Amino acid sequence: MFDTIAFDADDTLWHNEDLYLSIQERFARLLTTYQDEDVIHRKLYETEMRNLELYGYGIKAFTLSMIETAIELTEGQICGRDIQIIIDFAKEMRQAPVKLIDGVEQVLTSLVAAGYRLMLITKGDLFDQESKVARSGLAPNFEVVEIVSEKSAETYVALLAKHKLSPERFLMVGNSLRSDILPLLAIGAQAVHIPYHTTWVHEVIEPPSDHSPGYYELAHLAQLPDLISKITKP
Amino acid sequence: MFDTIAFDADDTLWHNEDLYLSIQERFARLLTTYQDEDVIHRKLYETEMRNLELYGYGIKAFTLSMIETAIELTEGQICGRDIQIIIDFAKEMRQAPVKLIDGVEQVLTSLVAAGYRLMLITKGDLFDQESKVARSGLAPNFEVVEIVSEKSAETYVALLAKHKLSPERFLMVGNSLRSDILPLLAIGAQAVHIPYHTTWVHEVIEPPSDHSPGYYELAHLAQLPDLISKITKP
Repeated sequence: MFDTIAFDADDTLWHNEDLYLSIQERFARLLTTYQDEDVIHRKLYETEMRNLELYGYGIKAFTLSMIETAIELTEGQICGRDIQIIIDFAKEMRQAPVKLIDGVEQVLTSLVAAGYRLMLITKGDLFDQESKVARSGLAPNFEVVEIVSEKSAETYVALLAKHKLSPERFLMVGNSLRSDILPLLAIGAQAVHIPYHTTWVHEVIEPPSDHSPGYYELAHLAQLPDLISKITKP
Repeated sequence: MFDTIAFDADDTLWHNEDLYLSIQERFARLLTTYQDEDVIHRKLYETEMRNLELYGYGIKAFTLSMIETAIELTEGQICGRDIQIIIDFAKEMRQAPVKLIDGVEQVLTSLVAAGYRLMLITKGDLFDQESKVARSGLAPNFEVVEIVSEKSAETYVALLAKHKLSPERFLMVGNSLRSDILPLLAIGAQAVHIPYHTTWVHEVIEPPSDHSPGYYELAHLAQLPDLISKITKP
């Protein structure tokens, strides 16, 4: 039914959004003398969205948006010392250990043993993502690692063409409906949605109907080998 | 003699270092009330080098290092308004038009017409580089575009393996001895050095001897087709 299984990385293979959320909380606390926390969170998100086409995704983009938001919300009153605290957030994020999702190693090993070709497709900052892939220890399971700046249907069409794969024999696994699931269904591939306990607002989108062809949903990554056995059974 | 010719991008196909230098000048002017310009330049470079393994290359990394340097040099006295000016530098750099090196289009077209397979290999921020490749209008000349986070001999070995190319039939063209030339000579490939009028200190390195096998030097990219005809003549 398919020979290539591709995985998203952040919040699919390892925890990521948690780290952003905890830094965002600390960012908000830094500015509570100037503004309410909900205004801070809203303004930060607005700044991130405005800067997306200039900076793309990742820690450096997030940090530049935090600094810009802090300047805006304090009307330029924020001091250099507090800006340095925000810069130190970036360094802390960059060096945070890669925490794997429970069971990921067994899942990948069993799929490799079952003869599937595994790919990792992650969007974001090249430097951040390469470092996480290396530190995760999971790289040997993947025949191909692709780091892309955006995950649109066009991105996937280009990747499939590059690796000479047909969508019918391609399954993508990920936590983001917007980035990992809908574009794949749109191009005739198959996709397994495994929601993470929290989703960045930017990635939130209506799920496809359960009856969409090629669409599967799981509560946890550890259930993936069973699902695959089931759907590939003749 | 070779069938693939790979090109570096920044300062080989289009101007780049000029933009960094002009922003660095404006950054220094912003801080001249606090410090001498040469101290500012030296401190910025130190900060960039210290942050290299955390941020990698590119505009966002450079901007975060400018902000950190400004905080350090002003002992935290720098105001939010001036930090915003530094953030605006990033946005200006990101949107600066891609200025091609004279003659680049003719050179690429003639090499494609001569049957060479062209590759573009650039290091830096994925998002910045993809945008520049797209805006340059040069992408259709390249069969492969690779954006890497560092250009070491290992990087090139991995790229050649990935594309099933042998070093003896591979020629790299670029302005940086450190990134585009020496690693290639080290792995048995050939390389054409075309110095740019200015080189980032980080990339400065002793040139190989003129007699090194596979090493060529040109004053200008427009001379490349002639050099290639000459060295491939039976």
